[in-house]
Amino acid sequence: MSSKPSIPKGTRDFSTEEMLKREYIFETIKQVFRLYGYQPIETPAIENLTTLLGKYGEEGDKLIFRILNSGDFLSPVSDEDLLKREPSRLSSRICEKGLRYDLTVPFARYVVQHRDEIVFPFKRYQIQPVWRADRPQKGRYREFFQCDVDVIGSDSLLNEYELIKIVDEIFGRLKVSVVIKVNNRKVLSGIAGFIGEADRITDITVAIDKLDKIGIEAVNSELISKGLSAGAISSLQPVLQLSGDTSVKLEKLSKLLTKSETGMQGIAELRKLFSYIESTQLGCNVELDLTLARGLNYYTGAIIEVKSRDVSIGSICGGGRYDNLAGVFGMEGVSGVGISFGADRIYDVLNQLNLFDDTRVSSTEVLIVNFGENEIFYALKILDRLRQMDVKSELYPDSVKLKKQMSYADSKRIPYIIIAGEDEIKTGTLTIKTMSSGEQKKIALTDLHSFVNDEMRKNN
Amino acid sequence: MSSKPSIPKGTRDFSTEEMLKREYIFETIKQVFRLYGYQPIETPAIENLTTLLGKYGEEGDKLIFRILNSGDFLSPVSDEDLLKREPSRLSSRICEKGLRYDLTVPFARYVVQHRDEIVFPFKRYQIQPVWRADRPQKGRYREFFQCDVDVIGSDSLLNEYELIKIVDEIFGRLKVSVVIKVNNRKVLSGIAGFIGEADRITDITVAIDKLDKIGIEAVNSELISKGLSAGAISSLQPVLQLSGDTSVKLEKLSKLLTKSETGMQGIAELRKLFSYIESTQLGCNVELDLTLARGLNYYTGAIIEVKSRDVSIGSICGGGRYDNLAGVFGMEGVSGVGISFGADRIYDVLNQLNLFDDTRVSSTEVLIVNFGENEIFYALKILDRLRQMDVKSELYPDSVKLKKQMSYADSKRIPYIIIAGEDEIKTGTLTIKTMSSGEQKKIALTDLHSFVNDEMRKNN
Repeated sequence: MSSKPSIPKGTRDFSTEEMLKREYIFETIKQVFRLYGYQPIETPAIENLTTLLGKYGEEGDKLIFRILNSGDFLSPVSDEDLLKREPSRLSSRICEKGLRYDLTVPFARYVVQHRDEIVFPFKRYQIQPVWRADRPQKGRYREFFQCDVDVIGSDSLLNEYELIKIVDEIFGRLKVSVVIKVNNRKVLSGIAGFIGEADRITDITVAIDKLDKIGIEAVNSELISKGLSAGAISSLQPVLQLSGDTSVKLEKLSKLLTKSETGMQGIAELRKLFSYIESTQLGCNVELDLTLARGLNYYTGAIIEVKSRDVSIGSICGGGRYDNLAGVFGMEGVSGVGISFGADRIYDVLNQLNLFDDTRVSSTEVLIVNFGENEIFYALKILDRLRQMDVKSELYPDSVKLKKQMSYADSKRIPYIIIAGEDEIKTGTLTIKTMSSGEQKKIALTDLHSFVNDEMRKNN
Repeated sequence: MSSKPSIPKGTRDFSTEEMLKREYIFETIKQVFRLYGYQPIETPAIENLTTLLGKYGEEGDKLIFRILNSGDFLSPVSDEDLLKREPSRLSSRICEKGLRYDLTVPFARYVVQHRDEIVFPFKRYQIQPVWRADRPQKGRYREFFQCDVDVIGSDSLLNEYELIKIVDEIFGRLKVSVVIKVNNRKVLSGIAGFIGEADRITDITVAIDKLDKIGIEAVNSELISKGLSAGAISSLQPVLQLSGDTSVKLEKLSKLLTKSETGMQGIAELRKLFSYIESTQLGCNVELDLTLARGLNYYTGAIIEVKSRDVSIGSICGGGRYDNLAGVFGMEGVSGVGISFGADRIYDVLNQLNLFDDTRVSSTEVLIVNFGENEIFYALKILDRLRQMDVKSELYPDSVKLKKQMSYADSKRIPYIIIAGEDEIKTGTLTIKTMSSGEQKKIALTDLHSFVNDEMRKNN
């Protein structure tokens, strides 16, 4: 036998059990998205490289999988250029297409390309795989799924509120206890201005973003190494150490930032958002977290991040508002806000907390034992009736030993076995074995309907 | 503004409306697969080229999208080899990975790779996109979905029967009238032997496969051009012209093929399969069609093909039995049988026959009009209640003119509008407008629950 075949590093096969668990997560997410009026779109896995390149920074460009042009792909390249051996220049001449790197850029491309067909505000969700030529490691894959929900074409803070409600509802349904952290990029800008380093907002937010991980001393050292003045760093300390509940924090902050128009606008936005949040009932806590910056230059208003309370795995969902998403494709001034659910991490959290329902991994409810050709037609009749009642059922296809058939049922965790041999056929009956209790019961074929409704359905 | 962005030829964006229609098809297919005890798996989009190459013939190999290696992809290639400019040799040195071309080869790879974890008979379905660097044309895409259902590790003809039941059930639920055509590769072998051209079975089946399209005269000419003897072609005529119902055909055929062991085995298989089929109730006709060969050398037993009765679009579903699927990966003698549903063609058929339910394209059920900050909290309260009742609902996010909000509801085909302005808030009421009738009705907020149950739900 030749050696076992394999799949590329960083990619995965999903077994039946994994698929059923993943579908439970995706279905829960989708149902809530729809309950909130969001609708699905999909974009192709393959995009033109002109769409993808230059959107994720230089590092990002390197992580895009490129697809070799078909046919004589070398023809546009001269011998001279070939021998120069410049990988990145050459690759853009022999590859026109690449694999989707995230769902945000394809969404922006979609909005611009279909602007005339779209009704704004456009509330869409998108659940699809993305690909990154990253170094694979634990929990980081080269092919993984993103679940994005965004609304584009509305400045209203009700959208931010709704996204928070969606997060609360989804994790409530998944029974995962989470905390939702909220910040506002405008407040961060105000702080940068207030400490006299308005043009260093990126350095400041990148450092602040690490507060949780590396602690305040290391953050301060990092700020020094970035060249921030001692005065600026010292003015920043009261902000980093702000305590109290959200309204107290906002009150203190509004006094500090009173001279920053942008900062005060951020505070006003946060106040309004929290007034919406306080008007409703949420299962989880929403906290203002000024250290939340998500390292990205991308967001212009709200920043949202979600963490599990019980599993330390980093952020399992996050997003924010971006004021000019589609600008890069020539459509200016359309504001959007969205969040992305990390399906793989959510899966890990549910697995660790044992939150997957066991019955979920069994799809088939009834197995009918196969006794051979003489009993087949009776078995097929039972099978037809079960399926008419929408009972997921199968007949073992081969008339092998009973033990083998039972072990098949066991491995597939099928809860009911039907035995219909010579005796049962003669008397118009069937024997039902309940696997959990081992109990066996003989019933008339005509009573199958009530058995399904009164006993099987009741137990599930 | 820069020019509109676009997507690669042969790929597609799916709009919300298209997505909802496609999901209806996929959901229907999935539900039936599960009802029959099949369970999902998924494999990565990216496979090693060693897995993909050599499985689809020389032409197929050319149609596989290859992914350029990351980093300095030219380093393993010498200057001399570079200047030889041999695209196919070079591509296998600068690309290790490719995009999945179908679901069958990855499934075979999966079975071999996970043989120790799999419970056989293994009943799996798989619904995922595949990619082919084909010339795009009407109805032929470079990225498209396949829906495959296969059982591996069982020789029983009950599996073929179950697949036919699945086809019947799925198209019954989709309300598409179809005919299922069945043949058996062993019968075709028998025929090739009977006319004295046993080793020409490929030429014969390829020609027979075209009978429907090009007619009997052209088939005969093709067989002549392939070098078949006049005697053989003349012996073939009674087979090509066989008429009568299935049992009559099988009877006539068994007399012709009496000396061919393989042929008689095929006839026995067909007889048994039809005995199962006759024992159940099907919505559609199942016909023996000896001209059915599906051009593939792949199948070793049953061959199945499904056509719409009302739309002329070719086969919308097809498959058969293959005795040695995993042999190419070193696992011998495991027989499988499966069929594949062509989602794109099924979509086209449903569209042409107007079989998509109109309500399906509206996902949101209620839009609450936004009157501005003073009315927001009352609106949010209504929204919470609606969603608690699982009513898909949204609040228009901006307090723009009523006309704009109504036209949004119109475009999204939202059936109910709730108006809750100053008057309604004062009196604890809300006004509900039913878009289909234009009727408006004022109810107490406390009656919202019964309105949803008694009027909205009843109409849907």
